[in-house]
Amino acid sequence: MTTATLSLSGLTAAATEAARTAAAATDAERAAWLHAVADALDANAAELVEIGEAETSLGVPRLTGEVARTTGQLRLFAAVITEGSYLEAVIDHADPAATPPKPDLRRILRPIGPVAVFSASNFPFAFSVAGGDTASALAVGCSVIVKAHSGHLRLSERTAEIVADALRGAGAPEGLFALVSGREVGTALVQDPAIKAVGFTGSIPGGRALFDLATSRPDPIPFYGELGSLNPVVITAAALQARAAELAAGLAGSFTMGAGQFCTKPGLVFIPAGTSFAHQVAEASKDKPTARMLTSRIAEAYPEGLRSFAAVEGVEVAGGSIDQDAAANGAAPVVFATTAAKVLERPEQLLEECFGPTTILIEYTDQQELSAVLAEVPGSLTATVHAGPGEDIGALVEQLSGLAGRVLFDGWPTGVAVNWAQQHGGPYPATTSLFTSVGATAVRRFQRPVAYQDAPESVLHPALREANPLGIPRRVDGELKLP
Amino acid sequence: MTTATLSLSGLTAAATEAARTAAAATDAERAAWLHAVADALDANAAELVEIGEAETSLGVPRLTGEVARTTGQLRLFAAVITEGSYLEAVIDHADPAATPPKPDLRRILRPIGPVAVFSASNFPFAFSVAGGDTASALAVGCSVIVKAHSGHLRLSERTAEIVADALRGAGAPEGLFALVSGREVGTALVQDPAIKAVGFTGSIPGGRALFDLATSRPDPIPFYGELGSLNPVVITAAALQARAAELAAGLAGSFTMGAGQFCTKPGLVFIPAGTSFAHQVAEASKDKPTARMLTSRIAEAYPEGLRSFAAVEGVEVAGGSIDQDAAANGAAPVVFATTAAKVLERPEQLLEECFGPTTILIEYTDQQELSAVLAEVPGSLTATVHAGPGEDIGALVEQLSGLAGRVLFDGWPTGVAVNWAQQHGGPYPATTSLFTSVGATAVRRFQRPVAYQDAPESVLHPALREANPLGIPRRVDGELKLP
Repeated sequence: MTTATLSLSGLTAAATEAARTAAAATDAERAAWLHAVADALDANAAELVEIGEAETSLGVPRLTGEVARTTGQLRLFAAVITEGSYLEAVIDHADPAATPPKPDLRRILRPIGPVAVFSASNFPFAFSVAGGDTASALAVGCSVIVKAHSGHLRLSERTAEIVADALRGAGAPEGLFALVSGREVGTALVQDPAIKAVGFTGSIPGGRALFDLATSRPDPIPFYGELGSLNPVVITAAALQARAAELAAGLAGSFTMGAGQFCTKPGLVFIPAGTSFAHQVAEASKDKPTARMLTSRIAEAYPEGLRSFAAVEGVEVAGGSIDQDAAANGAAPVVFATTAAKVLERPEQLLEECFGPTTILIEYTDQQELSAVLAEVPGSLTATVHAGPGEDIGALVEQLSGLAGRVLFDGWPTGVAVNWAQQHGGPYPATTSLFTSVGATAVRRFQRPVAYQDAPESVLHPALREANPLGIPRRVDGELKLP
Repeated sequence: MTTATLSLSGLTAAATEAARTAAAATDAERAAWLHAVADALDANAAELVEIGEAETSLGVPRLTGEVARTTGQLRLFAAVITEGSYLEAVIDHADPAATPPKPDLRRILRPIGPVAVFSASNFPFAFSVAGGDTASALAVGCSVIVKAHSGHLRLSERTAEIVADALRGAGAPEGLFALVSGREVGTALVQDPAIKAVGFTGSIPGGRALFDLATSRPDPIPFYGELGSLNPVVITAAALQARAAELAAGLAGSFTMGAGQFCTKPGLVFIPAGTSFAHQVAEASKDKPTARMLTSRIAEAYPEGLRSFAAVEGVEVAGGSIDQDAAANGAAPVVFATTAAKVLERPEQLLEECFGPTTILIEYTDQQELSAVLAEVPGSLTATVHAGPGEDIGALVEQLSGLAGRVLFDGWPTGVAVNWAQQHGGPYPATTSLFTSVGATAVRRFQRPVAYQDAPESVLHPALREANPLGIPRRVDGELKLP
């Protein structure tokens, strides 16, 4: 099931065959496959965490928690397909008396086929080999070929072995899951006619290049990319008056978490003008330990990013130092401060993601200026507002809803719950998709609707048979019915 | 509300403002707008049909029926938003005791913003100014700018007047709906930063060019294109033995309907080798009247298409004549016949859509050859099987499910019911989308999910408030609940 044994065309042929088998498998069978993978990862967690720590330096507690999150995610998708709403079964009975006569029509979501998954560097479990994209694709009956991230190759290979063994042991078809590595293979994968959708988490340039390949194929395929996000935070004067110290501590904890390498790191913080909040954030973050970054390339890019912010006229370093050797000594937190007016002058220079433990505080003078500068913020995964109790923030929330997929109140965006209501996605460049990559509805990315007109019961998917043998929620003649 | 009064940038600015108002309107308000438009079109149906007949020659009965279908469609979307499931409201309550603690998270689908709609030539009502794309976008709270089809410009303008007046009369915001015309304006519309999604029905070359523009924007947007479809039909030996004459008559009626200008026209018909079915189809279609085509360009392209099929080695003209002047005399039906072996030799020449009253009968010798040639058929809107009672067609149905969005049994694909279960879409080039453009779920194209984390009740959309004031189906803590 790995590159070692098969060429790419061999892998995609096997993936195509396996996808047929998986599509015909029952939800109970696929749920069992997911449980087998989750159990195997849990059983090998200590070994995996050790390899992961050696490759990523993210820390044993964080990595241990991430394994649990990853196996919880696999089990959530097993629950999702068992519940059955994910099939979106709809039945409209025939109406021969209508003008024109209406046929019997039954619609269901079917698996899209083999899926390519590009691992992220920053979540070596949850967004990698056995992460959310893989779990959601396998759940609905797709096969998966994962492109390993070069930042944790040994971990990827070991995880893939465990996943492949668990799937084999649970009776899943050969070829259902495979791992490949290398940039060229990744590029070929996106262009391979056998691949029907791509999941990707990574940088804007890398993701956009692959998006362009996917959409310029003779047969374009969906490319579900998560590319970059500034995750704006708005703090109102009332919030600051009520709890400045708490906000400074919370922000410092959030933007430095995981060495500032979270896709949901708060990278822009809008604060009322004329306060000492920048100083408080600088104080709250100055004792955060330096942290080794994911790869030497990322560690080298961090000080470059810091220097390019600092070089912009009107930007101050409010805390920390831009003169640092993150590759040698780990990354140290840096807090920048500027004004909304300056950002409006140079949005393209200041509204730019910098991977690492840094954030920019942007002073606004009034609601109008705040609204104007928010209008320049590119699409984000999250947007956060810290307000006073009972404060009228309706218009602000509406604006933030337009620029992000998740709007938070009095919290911090790092930390993404894996549940039914999660939305991890947002307008471009946050994602290239109208779907989430985290949470129950992530499965929808790998499904396509098919309607069956006047079909005999015997050829219908069980979900569409009259008696509802699966016992799932369905819409019948326009009415949603519970089993 | 039309081009005459505003520049494109004026129209898109007004559309952006109107989309904000529409997004904040209640479902009841938007349902009333849709009903007002439907009522106004019905009230003016006679005048509209007369203009439509002068421009398209589709015939008064067909156009009258199409107006009813169009207004029924508007009313269906009013019912869809009233029912409320379309919001996909999901609530996960907080669980502070979980590790890590889970926040309160509530997810809903929000309108995507201003939408551009490109009208089709062949359905001057149902896929045009007030057609399915417009109806579904308005239903969920988007504004719409329609690019008129040049084939029925007068009808487009008159329809737009009626729509705009009805919306204004019903209290909808100015700028919610506008009509533009001309190829350059259409191109500019797809690239306009204010436009957040595009609906398109038309040709493969035209649609692909616009798709490429939409996906190569600095911020790519979804392009929901319906481009081209061969709509394969498979007839088994048992079906032919049981009812050859009925099948010949049914096929002749379907491929000549609307002068063969339906996107669901059966363009490829797979039949068992060694029968007289081609002769029967030729007989059944030879007395169909010639029909004026939609535009002179289409009428000129038809005989060209016929000649290019006839020139392929191994293709016979089984009925009708390829030497015809469709522009002067109307289009006459032509039946081609060939073999699966020939198609497998030259798939790119024979698996090509020809707009007009023609179809190709393709003889297959066994199931293996049938499966091989079906594997070459491009993605289609529909696939049809005519089988004998109780015949084992499981594998065939599975293959057809993979290549089309709607699989029909013992029927003909022309005729698309507008209901909850419809799927009008399919793998590329049938569509560039995982969604339908007809039926209740078409609204999903113009919605984007947003989750609210720990939000105060006062800023939440009513659909997400604890007491469920809208009385709609919601998923609460993983469980689907009816109101």
